[in-house]
Amino acid sequence: MSWLICMILILLVPCAIAGIALINAGLGRSRSAAHAMTSSLCVLAVAALAYFVCGFAWQGYAGPASQAAATGGVRTWSWIASGPFFLRHLELDGPPESLAALFGMLGAALAAMIPLGSGADRWRLGACCVSTGILAGWTFPLFAHWAWGGGWLAQLGANYGLGRGFVDTGGAATIQAVGGVTALSIAWILGARRGKYTRDGMPMAIPGHNSVLVIFGCLLALVGWWGLNSAGAILFNDAAPGQAVIVAINTILSAATSALMAAAITKVRFGKPDASLTANGWIGGLAASSGACLFVAPAEAVVIGAVAGALITFAVEWFELRLRVDDPGGAISAHAVGGLWGVLSVGLFARIPMSESGAAGKLAGGAPGQWLAQLVGIATIIGFVLPLTYGLNWLASRVYAYRVAPEGERQGLDLHELGGGAYPEFIVHNEEFMDR
Amino acid sequence: MSWLICMILILLVPCAIAGIALINAGLGRSRSAAHAMTSSLCVLAVAALAYFVCGFAWQGYAGPASQAAATGGVRTWSWIASGPFFLRHLELDGPPESLAALFGMLGAALAAMIPLGSGADRWRLGACCVSTGILAGWTFPLFAHWAWGGGWLAQLGANYGLGRGFVDTGGAATIQAVGGVTALSIAWILGARRGKYTRDGMPMAIPGHNSVLVIFGCLLALVGWWGLNSAGAILFNDAAPGQAVIVAINTILSAATSALMAAAITKVRFGKPDASLTANGWIGGLAASSGACLFVAPAEAVVIGAVAGALITFAVEWFELRLRVDDPGGAISAHAVGGLWGVLSVGLFARIPMSESGAAGKLAGGAPGQWLAQLVGIATIIGFVLPLTYGLNWLASRVYAYRVAPEGERQGLDLHELGGGAYPEFIVHNEEFMDR
Amino acid sequence: MSWLICMILILLVPCAIAGIALINAGLGRSRSAAHAMTSSLCVLAVAALAYFVCGFAWQGYAGPASQAAATGGVRTWSWIASGPFFLRHLELDGPPESLAALFGMLGAALAAMIPLGSGADRWRLGACCVSTGILAGWTFPLFAHWAWGGGWLAQLGANYGLGRGFVDTGGAATIQAVGGVTALSIAWILGARRGKYTRDGMPMAIPGHNSVLVIFGCLLALVGWWGLNSAGAILFNDAAPGQAVIVAINTILSAATSALMAAAITKVRFGKPDASLTANGWIGGLAASSGACLFVAPAEAVVIGAVAGALITFAVEWFELRLRVDDPGGAISAHAVGGLWGVLSVGLFARIPMSESGAAGKLAGGAPGQWLAQLVGIATIIGFVLPLTYGLNWLASRVYAYRVAPEGERQGLDLHELGGGAYPEFIVHNEEFMDR
Repeated sequence: MSWLICMILILLVPCAIAGIALINAGLGRSRSAAHAMTSSLCVLAVAALAYFVCGFAWQGYAGPASQAAATGGVRTWSWIASGPFFLRHLELDGPPESLAALFGMLGAALAAMIPLGSGADRWRLGACCVSTGILAGWTFPLFAHWAWGGGWLAQLGANYGLGRGFVDTGGAATIQAVGGVTALSIAWILGARRGKYTRDGMPMAIPGHNSVLVIFGCLLALVGWWGLNSAGAILFNDAAPGQAVIVAINTILSAATSALMAAAITKVRFGKPDASLTANGWIGGLAASSGACLFVAPAEAVVIGAVAGALITFAVEWFELRLRVDDPGGAISAHAVGGLWGVLSVGLFARIPMSESGAAGKLAGGAPGQWLAQLVGIATIIGFVLPLTYGLNWLASRVYAYRVAPEGERQGLDLHELGGGAYPEFIVHNEEFMDR
Repeated sequence: MSWLICMILILLVPCAIAGIALINAGLGRSRSAAHAMTSSLCVLAVAALAYFVCGFAWQGYAGPASQAAATGGVRTWSWIASGPFFLRHLELDGPPESLAALFGMLGAALAAMIPLGSGADRWRLGACCVSTGILAGWTFPLFAHWAWGGGWLAQLGANYGLGRGFVDTGGAATIQAVGGVTALSIAWILGARRGKYTRDGMPMAIPGHNSVLVIFGCLLALVGWWGLNSAGAILFNDAAPGQAVIVAINTILSAATSALMAAAITKVRFGKPDASLTANGWIGGLAASSGACLFVAPAEAVVIGAVAGALITFAVEWFELRLRVDDPGGAISAHAVGGLWGVLSVGLFARIPMSESGAAGKLAGGAPGQWLAQLVGIATIIGFVLPLTYGLNWLASRVYAYRVAPEGERQGLDLHELGGGAYPEFIVHNEEFMDR
Repeated sequence: MSWLICMILILLVPCAIAGIALINAGLGRSRSAAHAMTSSLCVLAVAALAYFVCGFAWQGYAGPASQAAATGGVRTWSWIASGPFFLRHLELDGPPESLAALFGMLGAALAAMIPLGSGADRWRLGACCVSTGILAGWTFPLFAHWAWGGGWLAQLGANYGLGRGFVDTGGAATIQAVGGVTALSIAWILGARRGKYTRDGMPMAIPGHNSVLVIFGCLLALVGWWGLNSAGAILFNDAAPGQAVIVAINTILSAATSALMAAAITKVRFGKPDASLTANGWIGGLAASSGACLFVAPAEAVVIGAVAGALITFAVEWFELRLRVDDPGGAISAHAVGGLWGVLSVGLFARIPMSESGAAGKLAGGAPGQWLAQLVGIATIIGFVLPLTYGLNWLASRVYAYRVAPEGERQGLDLHELGGGAYPEFIVHNEEFMDR
């Protein structure tokens, strides 16, 4: 029963994928809009296939039973799963393993959408597919094994007594932060768009071409995140299906506060609230909620969202001004910064029932050492996953050029890569924002 | 089990919120489109927060158990609930109270989207948020307590034998009509858009800027309304979860007939069917279905839809021509008129099992006096909620100007309030529709 | 329980309807976009009403029980059901019959959306409604009775030992192919758009006006197809609700491979991947998955998708170049060709448990004779349904002109039929693509 409810919740996750696709397309240029959407469709397809081929084999699944089995005895660490490829020998008619496979497939696809935001307007379609194959076939499953598949991060609790081990309810680390640091790698490898920075290094504003798509994407993503967070809670945190209610309330409150915080900060600093930063705030609030949504009270979700909104707004500026990273979709800030804050918030706010150690009920200040497990997870994302994903993408970009030719960027990716624009009947500005 | 199904149904409701947001944006001007969507996101956020802070505390929840308890004895009337603020002391892991809180949060947000339609192109973003705070924090919970929370309207059955008391399955009154009369108040307070009426008082047509968004919003809203109506039926009318089937069939048939009726009437009167009135007819049919969808046969849902379509088409003209109310989104007609007709239709068509009085089975002509309970509800909306919401918004507009400066309206709300347009790369008409 | 899960899955189906509506609108011209969306809404409305009035009466439902009862004894063939009209005498509170009615209503509506793609830019709104009435009120229910309602195609197993009789899990034949051959009929009856073919018969490319809508529609349709395929599996193939997991995985893998195959083929043949053919590939992969999704392993779903993508890409060219059929939305190729391939794939790949004959477990090569039952089904679609739907639509077009007047086509259907455009504020090309 519980698993059937979880199954239905997973079926809502594509709303998050479609939402992020719209946000990425809307925050890019009109002359790359068809390319952004086609890339999204291809990335979803490649992610599903790569995860099917080898991703789940390396991720694996540690249900309550197997986790309990691993608890006893010596300190063994699990670094990678070694299931059969092609989802063979997996009963696909509803047991939790099969749900973890479906959830992971969509999680990998969602993570792979995130770099499309930071690589917008200059990342070749074929290169998106190559990078997605790496992410969904290797990097994502590896970290997912550690966090969700009974790997060493999850074992921190049993082996070292750090709370219940690394907790990542809906993928704040596994989906959002892994996708977000990949987005950062892609933005570094590609470099800034032509004209984004003036000769003296000042960033120019290049507004997204369609805010309606962006904010509609935010609204749609909410439903997908409800699916992510509640299905993850049931699959990986022994939540009862009815706890999807608290997850849903915490998710929407976190997103709401984060969006309002971003709107308020931009209003105070620039005189007017900024639509795209408000949207980034909303998505960042969703990403942050994926950490602790099962284990906090609604009032704490509001605090988590407020901090997320502030962090993201400043992170967008920091990446653009200080680090000279050109991230058209704000993907790095919303997903990596928002996600990592969500991971940390588990250590700060979560009250996790210590079911494994037999202690019933809730602990007031969270499981002891939980914050340390979360910090280890964050350090792993920044210290290991980021170099790994950067390195693999850098290698791939040596073999298969990631960035479109300058002529293609000027012309727009639609014409250059697809041979036709997204809006062939509409008249758009010839004026380059970048040449002002 | 029943509650888990209800929970999943509630998770579909944001489709209605996103659909209404698209309809409002599409029926407005292109130079206010980013503002319309940003307002929608902020209104959703403020509504969720306000409802979380105090809304549910004042709404409360009267489940089957507590309602039965209130049946016996003296005539006591419940005017307002007084639960703890911030959703404290509420078990949020699946019991009906927690579902009512999640449902109410989304209902408040949906109600708050409705005035955005009537205030389009001239309502300031901050003022939208203030008004939403009033609606979701006070007006909506107050009426929701009366209708859904065991308040005096619901008690009309037990106390005065008026059927089962006021029945509002999916929020025809509580969400649609409360939101609709608030939309009317906002339109009154703001006044008409510049150029909407000529000097001799003739209304000019100002077409919406994107019909595709509008009708896509209608299609999406269907799924959301299925969630609304069926979850409301389970939560507030003791429906078995399987009855979501009849609810779904009645909902789609009502919307279908209403849209076709609106198309037919505009075709007969103006020679061509009107796309935006057909869309308004669809939404009005959905709003009307929220009243009686659990208690009528599909053939009766068709009749309810047909009447709704006719009412709405004439109401749009009546508000525009006679009352000089400028309602760009047709929100007042679709939601207030459609919703109130849905409330009345319960009295005319519903066959409500008299479970409370012990009489099993269905009564042919509805519970005795049910129509009177519905009329009391309608009178409360028009005679109490409308003045209340008008008064509160009028007061708020004295403190914080609701209408944008004339310069901002000319320029478009996007540039004036957000500093950037929704479609910065597209070339749009300079020609003012209003200056013809 | 199983039926409640099935009910929820059905509620996801409108995502497919909305997705197809967006694809049709996006692949048409901007001057017909409001018409395309208004037609979609009206077609959904007419389909729901026609199916409610008489469609389900003629379709009927043969649940596991009645099917088992029909197995014994003489060879009786069921040609049509004769239930009461207007869904009377149907318990609409959750039993499988009521779910079949809701599923069929949405299936009829989805089938009716398909011809809108092939008739885009020249099919009158009233004629769309007439044609939908025929399809949803007669043609669709007739074939649905045969395939799903215990009719002669389903009886091929019991009567002639052809496997389990014709199997069509999610509507590859009943929805996609029936809709697809209707689309072919409509394209034949309407003829090509003005300027689609030069005087010497060469087809001109007329690009769709909005690729973003098209590909977003693809993403949204995935959720709808999950609903279709898994609910159909439960309703018509005795699937356990948990098998929705394998259905979901097979559906997404089939669509993914098909889209990538279409992208790869167009890349190899034309130098650049084509966005709209990739989208058609995705939809065709979804249509193909509807056949065998319950009965194949994920690796086989990948093969089914790969073949679908290749078939569809060549079919689009074949219809346009060889048959001179002008199909703006690629609806015939994606739905008819994709759907029929899906039907055939059941015979080639499916391992269907022979529950009826008492043999438990799975047979390696599919039920004996299953492929013959599938071929009979395909022959019925091509040899009977296509002439039937062509004939009925041809007759209707004699009474009520299907094609818009040449003036209206030049002007755009929006202005001609609705009196207003979809995007009245945007400036679009005057240049005719067709006049180049």
